[in-house]
Amino acid sequence: MITEGMIDALLTLPYGLHIVTSHDEGKVNGQVANAVCQVTAEPPKMMICIHKGNLTHEYISKSSVLAISVLEQETPMTFIGLFGFKSGRDVDKMSETKWEKGVTGAPVVMDHAVTVFEGKVVDECDVGTHTLFLAEIVRAERVKEAPPLTYAHYRAVRHGKSPKNAPTYHPPSGEEKAERSGTGMKKYVCDVCGYVYDPAIGDPDNNIAPGTAFESLPDDWVCPLCGAGKSDFSVQQ
Amino acid sequence: MITEGMIDALLTLPYGLHIVTSHDEGKVNGQVANAVCQVTAEPPKMMICIHKGNLTHEYISKSSVLAISVLEQETPMTFIGLFGFKSGRDVDKMSETKWEKGVTGAPVVMDHAVTVFEGKVVDECDVGTHTLFLAEIVRAERVKEAPPLTYAHYRAVRHGKSPKNAPTYHPPSGEEKAERSGTGMKKYVCDVCGYVYDPAIGDPDNNIAPGTAFESLPDDWVCPLCGAGKSDFSVQQ
Repeated sequence: MITEGMIDALLTLPYGLHIVTSHDEGKVNGQVANAVCQVTAEPPKMMICIHKGNLTHEYISKSSVLAISVLEQETPMTFIGLFGFKSGRDVDKMSETKWEKGVTGAPVVMDHAVTVFEGKVVDECDVGTHTLFLAEIVRAERVKEAPPLTYAHYRAVRHGKSPKNAPTYHPPSGEEKAERSGTGMKKYVCDVCGYVYDPAIGDPDNNIAPGTAFESLPDDWVCPLCGAGKSDFSVQQ
Repeated sequence: MITEGMIDALLTLPYGLHIVTSHDEGKVNGQVANAVCQVTAEPPKMMICIHKGNLTHEYISKSSVLAISVLEQETPMTFIGLFGFKSGRDVDKMSETKWEKGVTGAPVVMDHAVTVFEGKVVDECDVGTHTLFLAEIVRAERVKEAPPLTYAHYRAVRHGKSPKNAPTYHPPSGEEKAERSGTGMKKYVCDVCGYVYDPAIGDPDNNIAPGTAFESLPDDWVCPLCGAGKSDFSVQQ
């Protein structure tokens, strides 16, 4: 059982946030992944950790190819919400995204990408809820000069959360629940994804200025992370 | 074969820099590792990628336990040099370090640690030159409130390099070789580890002020990363 102390400790591990994509018989899909790293230099090989329940896992298993897009720091939360908090079984994520067919046949997401990689799966390792895919890198390309998005930036600056199928998922801690907005106005938490609306910050991606109370948000405002409506939010206890 | 374009792309992947330690019949050792990540939440499990030729690999294989110390951003280069560029077969690294025996029996490095973990190896995956150790986390503790050291900070701000057994190792690129110091004075590169002495920066860890030419360094000055002497440095071409 994971404890709050363990969660606090695990959050100090530095990661990036990437989009991992694959395909199966003309269908394409992708998801956010943080547990992605180079594991050997000769030959250049990467490890990608994906939850077994995810559609992207199914596609990688079937096609044995994948692509990775290292996201830029300024990636909008709605983009992360689309790829991180929605399933390709419910939504056609790639139709809302600029991508191109890669040399391996895998779809390569170009939107907000600093770097793109393509890999051929040469081995995999079952680690329980997730699989580690080992992929030999067949393409690696820098597409934009911009700092990459780190998990620390996503959490601390953008107030992002991890979805249930992430290796880093954990239920909200007591400390997080006890946080209060600096404005004295109430914070609201999304019951779907855990995103916290903080009136002190507003929602800059969607032109909501700092100092805007949750109650004053337009009726058609949606969670910038997962797209849930205002009625899916509760006052943070 | 890894190409310069591939190296440039791979350097955009965010990582931390950690010390991974283990033991064998009373002997203790540790090394720097960057390819370390959480791979499942239930149970909490981590992956640690270690080169097969390293002494730490031998100890983890024999004892099936390990510890991880997430380093703080301000970790001195000499500390990284000791654990990253020297072998435990040549030097008793742990005798120069504050550590304690953990609950698993593994030595836990406390010097410059933001967080410490201990794990029991439950599986491993052979990926060629390296092994991925899968460890169930049995201890996780925050020991210091400080930002963790990232690989990007180590490279960009501290001018650090990767040793030959790192998953991220690559020979110096043409672009790196062509760099010139902003002072007009010559830069010198360590033939052992690749560290670059830049007169514009000096060596703050060892009280060498910015603006100090390589030629003016004291005769007993050594490479802050690997401990090589001045005679092991060459003018950067």
